[in-house]
Amino acid sequence: MIRRRIGVLGGGQLGQMLGQAGVSLAAEFIFLDPAETPSARHVGRHLRAGFADAAGAATLAAACDVVTYEFEHLDLPTVQAIATTTEVHPSPRALKIVQDRIRQKEFLAAAGIAIAPFAAITSAADLTAAVATLGTPCLLKTARDGYDGKGQRLIRDPLHAAAAWAELQQQRCVLETFVTFSRELSLVSTRGRDGAVVFHPLAVNHHRDGILRLSRAPAPDVTAALQTQAETMARRLLNELAYVGTFTIEFFHVGDALIVNELAPRVHNSGHWTIEGAVTSQFENHVRALMGLPLGDPAATGHAAMVNIVGTFPDRHRLLALPGVHLHDYGKTERPGRKLGHVTIVDPTASGLEQRLAAVLALIE
Amino acid sequence: MIRRRIGVLGGGQLGQMLGQAGVSLAAEFIFLDPAETPSARHVGRHLRAGFADAAGAATLAAACDVVTYEFEHLDLPTVQAIATTTEVHPSPRALKIVQDRIRQKEFLAAAGIAIAPFAAITSAADLTAAVATLGTPCLLKTARDGYDGKGQRLIRDPLHAAAAWAELQQQRCVLETFVTFSRELSLVSTRGRDGAVVFHPLAVNHHRDGILRLSRAPAPDVTAALQTQAETMARRLLNELAYVGTFTIEFFHVGDALIVNELAPRVHNSGHWTIEGAVTSQFENHVRALMGLPLGDPAATGHAAMVNIVGTFPDRHRLLALPGVHLHDYGKTERPGRKLGHVTIVDPTASGLEQRLAAVLALIE
Repeated sequence: MIRRRIGVLGGGQLGQMLGQAGVSLAAEFIFLDPAETPSARHVGRHLRAGFADAAGAATLAAACDVVTYEFEHLDLPTVQAIATTTEVHPSPRALKIVQDRIRQKEFLAAAGIAIAPFAAITSAADLTAAVATLGTPCLLKTARDGYDGKGQRLIRDPLHAAAAWAELQQQRCVLETFVTFSRELSLVSTRGRDGAVVFHPLAVNHHRDGILRLSRAPAPDVTAALQTQAETMARRLLNELAYVGTFTIEFFHVGDALIVNELAPRVHNSGHWTIEGAVTSQFENHVRALMGLPLGDPAATGHAAMVNIVGTFPDRHRLLALPGVHLHDYGKTERPGRKLGHVTIVDPTASGLEQRLAAVLALIE
Repeated sequence: MIRRRIGVLGGGQLGQMLGQAGVSLAAEFIFLDPAETPSARHVGRHLRAGFADAAGAATLAAACDVVTYEFEHLDLPTVQAIATTTEVHPSPRALKIVQDRIRQKEFLAAAGIAIAPFAAITSAADLTAAVATLGTPCLLKTARDGYDGKGQRLIRDPLHAAAAWAELQQQRCVLETFVTFSRELSLVSTRGRDGAVVFHPLAVNHHRDGILRLSRAPAPDVTAALQTQAETMARRLLNELAYVGTFTIEFFHVGDALIVNELAPRVHNSGHWTIEGAVTSQFENHVRALMGLPLGDPAATGHAAMVNIVGTFPDRHRLLALPGVHLHDYGKTERPGRKLGHVTIVDPTASGLEQRLAAVLALIE
């Protein structure tokens, strides 16, 4: 059976790009989103409802063969309710684990995956004890709803720990050792219904103000051993979760090793380069997995870079006049810190890529 | 000014692929189409109306910044009426010329473009005289509404000319000398609002039963001189028409020369390979031209082949399990001779392409 009618919780840019990919496979989308004009509305039906709206969720479930989501900060009982009538992928179990940093860290630790030392913080006493154990500097992160660097505080001195937690409204948190890493790498994988897993090459990510600005893929200077290290971890986690769909792991690269920073149960900004830079994109493979179709070749076709457009949009004429620019405009109004679009460039050579990238960065930055 | 709201007369697979490309540029589409479930309905609004419905056309014109079309067999007065209030590209003048084979041939001849000897047939006397002048074999084609080999008769003997014309309901026709060619090549170009023109590499096309089955691009054994010959003709025609948008020329390759077979004022089946096989696709460049944006690089990124899926759909699991297959499913029900979808494969080497293509053809043919 091919599941054509796909419901998506969230209708932002990830939904937009899922929809674009899915149209080629004759998938039909309904995007549940409370926004009036979500980006994805042009590639499917828009069901306007809140993410915790039981009636909206029931409508979506009834109209679809399978339901997925484009972000993890969802109301779990609503997703679990959908799953009582309609397949949900990734599963509510995967969502429950990944959407909560405490559960996520405990899951990773139990699976024997390398992570930074951490402690769950649910009281002032937890915090005092954990800062003493882990030492400073350390990072305090809310267990829920963090993204783009939001919901985090760096603690340099134990004296400031209580104030940092107060700034985060004393929510449930994890405290983790501040890892000194050489770079951040991410691995986007997809697992099919049949258990087959495909891996894109590692990408290297550059952030500013907590927001991803630039990814290069395949990341330079990645040995076969390093790629294998990443894939081995991903395969273990995906199998452990009986996962279906696309999955992203952000790693810290420390020496020759990878430490998992965090997981995302979805297509990911650091995998946007795959639309033009890989044989099969993360979006198409997620849709293939949902539909129960074989996964496509995740290999890179050249050297790719992806640059986010954040806050303000550069002049579109000047941008599109640059050679080889692939623009993805999310159709959003400008707002500081908001991801408005991205540009991908692919070149057969690393030096050619850098030349083209410099021109793009000069315009976007 | 960037024209975002794009109206399209026709909502078939070409509209579907235009929409997919346009979403990335934040274009918004309305597809006017009388069908209940046209392929393009998933990538924009569907305005259900007949192509000669004045009210429907007025609604489309009022809602859009620019109107285009995905096929040329349109009611010209309706298109001209739209153009009184809203920009139409390609222009009604271009449409008028191209949609009628007599006008098209006369236009080509007047522009000094190489074509097969032809005659306009509007009476039995015309036909008798023309068959005598051109000799046999010759081809009789209706002036209007021909596609996929429909509306054509091969005349091998002057005695059969009248019967052939009767089979075509004695419509206005052109009679043309039957050209013995080594292959059919096509050139897809786009002209921007600023007059800039870009050309994809020539593709070589293979038909069966009058329907395109396979295109390879860049076509093998195309010298720089041959590509230039094609581009020179295209540029002359595009400039002469003050054309805006994508334009296709089908050529017969005869010896070292190209003879124009026919024109299409639109994106074309023989250019579908550009979605995955060129830096910028024909669809994106048509949208860029409509929006008034700079055109993108039309160069090929490797060796590409496009195979049409006609009549019946192969098993999707087996098809997508083949490495490097890019499927475009138009979401149509099966019907003999109907184009249901296509597959594109791109490979860095010509031999790699042939290997992959053989596996695809084994499944589709």
